[in-house]
Amino acid sequence: MCGTPVEHRIPPDDNRERAVCPACDHIQYVNPLNVVGTLPTWQDQVLLCRRNIEPRKGYWTLPAGFMELGETTEEGAQRETDEEAGAHIELQGLYCLLNVVNAGQVHLFYRARLLDTEFNPGPETIEAQLFRQDEIPWADLAFRTVKLTLEHYFADRESGQFGVHFADIN
Amino acid sequence: MCGTPVEHRIPPDDNRERAVCPACDHIQYVNPLNVVGTLPTWQDQVLLCRRNIEPRKGYWTLPAGFMELGETTEEGAQRETDEEAGAHIELQGLYCLLNVVNAGQVHLFYRARLLDTEFNPGPETIEAQLFRQDEIPWADLAFRTVKLTLEHYFADRESGQFGVHFADIN
Repeated sequence: MCGTPVEHRIPPDDNRERAVCPACDHIQYVNPLNVVGTLPTWQDQVLLCRRNIEPRKGYWTLPAGFMELGETTEEGAQRETDEEAGAHIELQGLYCLLNVVNAGQVHLFYRARLLDTEFNPGPETIEAQLFRQDEIPWADLAFRTVKLTLEHYFADRESGQFGVHFADIN
Repeated sequence: MCGTPVEHRIPPDDNRERAVCPACDHIQYVNPLNVVGTLPTWQDQVLLCRRNIEPRKGYWTLPAGFMELGETTEEGAQRETDEEAGAHIELQGLYCLLNVVNAGQVHLFYRARLLDTEFNPGPETIEAQLFRQDEIPWADLAFRTVKLTLEHYFADRESGQFGVHFADIN
């Protein structure tokens, strides 16, 4: 904050080490981040995006990204779907809340209904494409949270019951 | 990071202003934070804590605080319940996910069953106390997310149906 190198120590009234400035006493907290995204569907197909950025460039993902200040989790999920796929959707409620502890992240995926099949991927996406269940590139998915969310979706679609799913990934 | 004052500008491949270091190119991202907590219940009573710290010192709250790195949302909720109330609980699943946009926060409250009525409040809490529905200090609650979570709880208890609740608070 003031330019002085921080020290790592436990501040008063705290119980864990933080980056503290010895000059101005500013504490640089680091906390988990939310990644918000959607599972967009059209008839019996789901929309995946092939990543044009690291990590996992070239692999397939659900549209998702870091939640920003000034938006709700739903608004963030909708924004990321627009930025990464240029897809027009209607949100259908929270579907998965996944703790990714080692990454310091919480992933929140919303189910979404595609309003049409016109996509306009942004610079972070190579291509956006619809897949039927037997076409999903399971070996080329970018992240375990994407795999888990898709697995829940196809299982729930089979049973006709779409609950909210919770899991921890380490 | 390197001690040089940051500039506020839109980094390459981004679309919003960030704090960027003109010397080392480090980007200081600021994103919403998760506040994790519980709604602990014992028979027909709920546990509230009277805050010993600002903001809202002296007002009643559910045990909750900022999620930390290295823990899941559930583990954070349990830790905060231990730190603020010294209460022994068993988690019963996510109950409320509340976007508090103006504060840059997402509040996640879990329902919890108290295993006993021995409390041992930490330094952030003046006292921890059980309240029946007609004893809740509605006018002296610390935060709107606490009020909303309690309102949902008493309504759901009446109906016998405990779903997951979502709301945005601006």
